[in-house]
Amino acid sequence: MHFTSETTANGVVERRFTHADVPGVLWTAPGDPSARPLVLLAHGGGQHKTAPGIAGRAHRFVAAGFAAAALDAPGHGERPRTEREERVSAEIRSLVAAGEPAVDYVARYHAEVASQSVKEWTSTVDELWTAGIGTDRPVGFFGISMGTGLGVPLVAAEPRIAAAVFGLAGNEGLADAAGRVRVPIEFLLQWDDEMVPRDSALALFDAFGSAEKSLHANAGPHAGVPRFEVDSAVRFFARHLLA
Amino acid sequence: MHFTSETTANGVVERRFTHADVPGVLWTAPGDPSARPLVLLAHGGGQHKTAPGIAGRAHRFVAAGFAAAALDAPGHGERPRTEREERVSAEIRSLVAAGEPAVDYVARYHAEVASQSVKEWTSTVDELWTAGIGTDRPVGFFGISMGTGLGVPLVAAEPRIAAAVFGLAGNEGLADAAGRVRVPIEFLLQWDDEMVPRDSALALFDAFGSAEKSLHANAGPHAGVPRFEVDSAVRFFARHLLA
Repeated sequence: MHFTSETTANGVVERRFTHADVPGVLWTAPGDPSARPLVLLAHGGGQHKTAPGIAGRAHRFVAAGFAAAALDAPGHGERPRTEREERVSAEIRSLVAAGEPAVDYVARYHAEVASQSVKEWTSTVDELWTAGIGTDRPVGFFGISMGTGLGVPLVAAEPRIAAAVFGLAGNEGLADAAGRVRVPIEFLLQWDDEMVPRDSALALFDAFGSAEKSLHANAGPHAGVPRFEVDSAVRFFARHLLA
Repeated sequence: MHFTSETTANGVVERRFTHADVPGVLWTAPGDPSARPLVLLAHGGGQHKTAPGIAGRAHRFVAAGFAAAALDAPGHGERPRTEREERVSAEIRSLVAAGEPAVDYVARYHAEVASQSVKEWTSTVDELWTAGIGTDRPVGFFGISMGTGLGVPLVAAEPRIAAAVFGLAGNEGLADAAGRVRVPIEFLLQWDDEMVPRDSALALFDAFGSAEKSLHANAGPHAGVPRFEVDSAVRFFARHLLA
């Protein structure tokens, strides 16, 4: 893991890094971050590790006592946009234009990417722990939309993750992995989501094997998650990771 | 309105009152409560105005900057248990024992009681405002289970109520009134509710006419609403009534 830059803004230290050719970013409070639990932030489709939603959440989590880290997903951000991502974008646009549901197609794409991204996240936690970030503390995961498509297989496979916020995704291709998730989850659903059928999202929430799980459904479209849900996520991670 | 007793515990003043033969209780902070918005607390079936859940919420709301008031519903608490309530309890027990759904029967009972309880609540707000409690401030409503069965018609009819927490109820008999509710709501659903079918509760949430509505569904049975939902309700009312 190579740290390539360090800047400080609003009391938050932002360090860019590269690990095994994956570009990432780490947000911490100034000083020794080793005692603070790490929250992993997975971005949505077409976004990247420092998209405004991700950076905004990172600052909120650092202010609340955590360290936060994000990676560019395969084919996203600073990573080469492969032929696969070009093909997937075009196919989704054409399905949507034809009024066809894209969920099954998107689910297959996420499953393909997850086989790679799960390894990248797991290896990044190894390296961050070695670097003294959140070492031996429970880890949190926050990822909605594609962040859930890639995050459910990660949380199912990664025993260091002790709490997760998911949402904006349906059960296509995810139900089995969701059943293996046993940690507390908070699940965000947009009641008027134009991309994810409501029944499919409710079925995914139902599929999680967690004894403690909370669904937060809000009126509005896919991109309309209310800002107060980030406050709720902060409190959720505080309950489970800072106790 | 006659105030009949006053006690203070943990920094909260509790005053019992009777208004038009309905026994109630008012919780305020010491000093002049006129600038604090009022939150109405409606109890569940078989409970009463000072049941532990109600008194506990009242103390939380007072600590957060509100006044809180509760009434005994018709046939509950200190009010005469009428032949109707005896008959309803026996009928619900017998339906449950026979494995029959009780929702339609319960809905008809709630509709019958609501025609009375809506008037009682409206008149109580009149009197409390006259007594200088929350006068001319927006009013909040918190009622789950039977508190929703009686509360949805109240909130639909009472323009002084500006935000409401509902839950643990299905859409039987309530969908029309829910459609007339336009204020922000938070709706609590227990994912494993043994008394309210999940689809019926989801349909009720869907029926609300509110532009801002949030569903909080948690794993667990009817009586298992997590304590952190009271914290969430405090923040919900603070957003809408204290701004």
